[in-house]
Amino acid sequence: MRIYDIIYKKRERVALTGEEIRFFVQGYARGDIPDYQASALLMAIYLNGMTDEEMLALTHEMLASGEVLEWPDLPGRRVDKHSTGGVGDKTSLILAPIVAAAGVYVPMISGRGLGHTGGTLDKLESIPGFNVRLTTDEFRKVLAGTHLALAGQTKEIAPADKKLYALRDVTATVESIPLIAASILSKKLAEGIDALVLDVKTGAGAFMKSLSDAQALARTLVQIGKGAGKRVVALITDMNQPLGTHIGNTLEVIESVGVLNGNVKNDLAELSFELAAHMLVLGEVADDLAKARRRVREIVDKGAALRKFQEVVAAQGGDPQALEEHSRMPAAKHSETITATQRGVVQAVDAEEVGVAAMLLGAGRTQVDAAIDHGAGVVLHHKVGDKVQQESHLATLYFNDDSRSAEARDRVKAAFRIGDQPPAKTKLIHQIIS
Amino acid sequence: MRIYDIIYKKRERVALTGEEIRFFVQGYARGDIPDYQASALLMAIYLNGMTDEEMLALTHEMLASGEVLEWPDLPGRRVDKHSTGGVGDKTSLILAPIVAAAGVYVPMISGRGLGHTGGTLDKLESIPGFNVRLTTDEFRKVLAGTHLALAGQTKEIAPADKKLYALRDVTATVESIPLIAASILSKKLAEGIDALVLDVKTGAGAFMKSLSDAQALARTLVQIGKGAGKRVVALITDMNQPLGTHIGNTLEVIESVGVLNGNVKNDLAELSFELAAHMLVLGEVADDLAKARRRVREIVDKGAALRKFQEVVAAQGGDPQALEEHSRMPAAKHSETITATQRGVVQAVDAEEVGVAAMLLGAGRTQVDAAIDHGAGVVLHHKVGDKVQQESHLATLYFNDDSRSAEARDRVKAAFRIGDQPPAKTKLIHQIIS
Repeated sequence: MRIYDIIYKKRERVALTGEEIRFFVQGYARGDIPDYQASALLMAIYLNGMTDEEMLALTHEMLASGEVLEWPDLPGRRVDKHSTGGVGDKTSLILAPIVAAAGVYVPMISGRGLGHTGGTLDKLESIPGFNVRLTTDEFRKVLAGTHLALAGQTKEIAPADKKLYALRDVTATVESIPLIAASILSKKLAEGIDALVLDVKTGAGAFMKSLSDAQALARTLVQIGKGAGKRVVALITDMNQPLGTHIGNTLEVIESVGVLNGNVKNDLAELSFELAAHMLVLGEVADDLAKARRRVREIVDKGAALRKFQEVVAAQGGDPQALEEHSRMPAAKHSETITATQRGVVQAVDAEEVGVAAMLLGAGRTQVDAAIDHGAGVVLHHKVGDKVQQESHLATLYFNDDSRSAEARDRVKAAFRIGDQPPAKTKLIHQIIS
Repeated sequence: MRIYDIIYKKRERVALTGEEIRFFVQGYARGDIPDYQASALLMAIYLNGMTDEEMLALTHEMLASGEVLEWPDLPGRRVDKHSTGGVGDKTSLILAPIVAAAGVYVPMISGRGLGHTGGTLDKLESIPGFNVRLTTDEFRKVLAGTHLALAGQTKEIAPADKKLYALRDVTATVESIPLIAASILSKKLAEGIDALVLDVKTGAGAFMKSLSDAQALARTLVQIGKGAGKRVVALITDMNQPLGTHIGNTLEVIESVGVLNGNVKNDLAELSFELAAHMLVLGEVADDLAKARRRVREIVDKGAALRKFQEVVAAQGGDPQALEEHSRMPAAKHSETITATQRGVVQAVDAEEVGVAAMLLGAGRTQVDAAIDHGAGVVLHHKVGDKVQQESHLATLYFNDDSRSAEARDRVKAAFRIGDQPPAKTKLIHQIIS
């Protein structure tokens, strides 16, 4: 078998066999296939696509390139959630403790933020002492003890995906549904889960700007996940405006605690509870979605979810008290509030602009491995549909380093569009695909 | 400017600007752009194509990456011919001396054989002492003195093309009309020519198997050549069966001499004379094609063409006497004749099979820089349309090394298809595009 022939075949729109995909993934991971041949193949895949069978094989081979966790001793189902990423998207911090409190195991391997989107690991690290760098053994122990473990991808998980992703990133081959789908699923399947709920974002702040692209990705993910023998449900959800009101790491932990203790009732709460309900059904602790929704409410109302969050924080070396005394978490020294220059109704709050602003304030990073400022971020005081007066507070910026705060302020101002008419109703959950 | 954005743009089917193409070609030639980004762009160009403007810019930038010969002192037009390559295609050895004898300058930079197709340089090196490795100064001197110089590409000519071709060769991006066209024309334009005749082959033994692909390539070449300010004519010619009867280096020199001294009258002679006639018109020494054809005949009949060939052989250090005493050239020790197993009419002589057979006998190479055996090859005794009896001689194999002669014999046998009916007439010249 020669990589040349595999590139040629894909160039000619002929589907690759499982053996050919294995040859490519294994050869590339080992370093036998050079980058310049891999990138030609990636571009051919980008432009000519892949069949469901090819995507399933690609996912399988990337998964097989590394360690796959197994859980022979756990007495319950393992269910995780994956989001394609957004601004203010902190649903993991809310739904994971809820689902764990319901008796489903949640072995959650997450990523860090990059660009205008945040990452679960960065948010968790706002909690003093919280250790996301668990060994496989530590991960097992925490999961078995609390039904929930939250950690980063080790180098043992899908190393072929890691290497291919770095190449895609510099060869303009990231935005390819087959490659995205295989990348997401190979990492999630490595957790040894039984089922997966996918939150595929669409809109101005999402990776998939159009609904049709999001639908295509969601369908593909569900298809491949099922092909791999898992139960998979995808929710296509809105990411035109940020989710919830808080953007930035400490700030997002604070808002999540607000949802878990029942004080915050907004789009973030609604979506987190809905995703959690789907996880309960897939985790086989609720017979149907209606029962699952009621169970989620009960868990939150009884305080069991917040207690579960504190339990996992403690299990991973963090300070559980920080979830109640927020001053124990990193904070920003400076703040600045942006006010409306006209009265009217908020038509739009551009998620990407707000995300970039938060990044500029220090909450995110432009380069992998750059340091972040956990205290920095943005809090929105109004969202789409809210009536505002001239001088109404629209948002507050929090920062320690003011070197780019002027640019951030301009972006947040630009993110708000205020008009006379009430805006068209937007749906939070566009569609459910299973 | 970033190469990432250029790859992204081409991926999205947006035409690149001249500046972007310059950035790519210069950056790649200098080594600033890594192979893995160049190969992703090449695949995107392969699959998404290029506009005429992009191809012209690509040709121009590859040309500008190296030396461009200039001929301020030559008192006549400079015209060359380029063939896309075939089996038994030795027209250069015939038309170049004819055209030079007519007073047109022919600064011919050629290549070596690879795979089943031969190369002019290898054929010339069958002539003892013939030096194809001329410096630019030597090339100038020979051309000025004899109206003809025959040499290989120096590393100064279009180095960006050389580097890109090597990358295309391993990333399945060779067979792209924009990339082929820019590669051919950048090298030919570096000769400092006024006009160019193109022989675009089509058929079983050609690079472009289908007539429509050959037409597309020919049209593109003519378009870009004109865009670069040159007069260009393309002939689309048949390469289903080998051209002429002799395949292999010494053997092809012998057949060429036969055409030049008027003894050989076949498809090779016909095509060589026709290409030469077009060159005379473009070289402005004949007013029209009819006059040019008569002039070609006169030159051959008077022996002026053969004398010109001997003159250039002498000027480049070779033994001019070898063109008359063929035993001075490398020969094969062994020969083997293949006979017909049935009577009938030759329906086809597969050019690619015969070309591969000659290569296996030692006349060609599978890898760049491999050594070849100048004496080896195949002589055809019958071509398409000939009537044969059982036991008629079909072809003779010549070789020194018999390690792969059995495979070569089988291929030559398989190349001949004999049937009862006279085959459909095939045209030698399908179309002329200008």
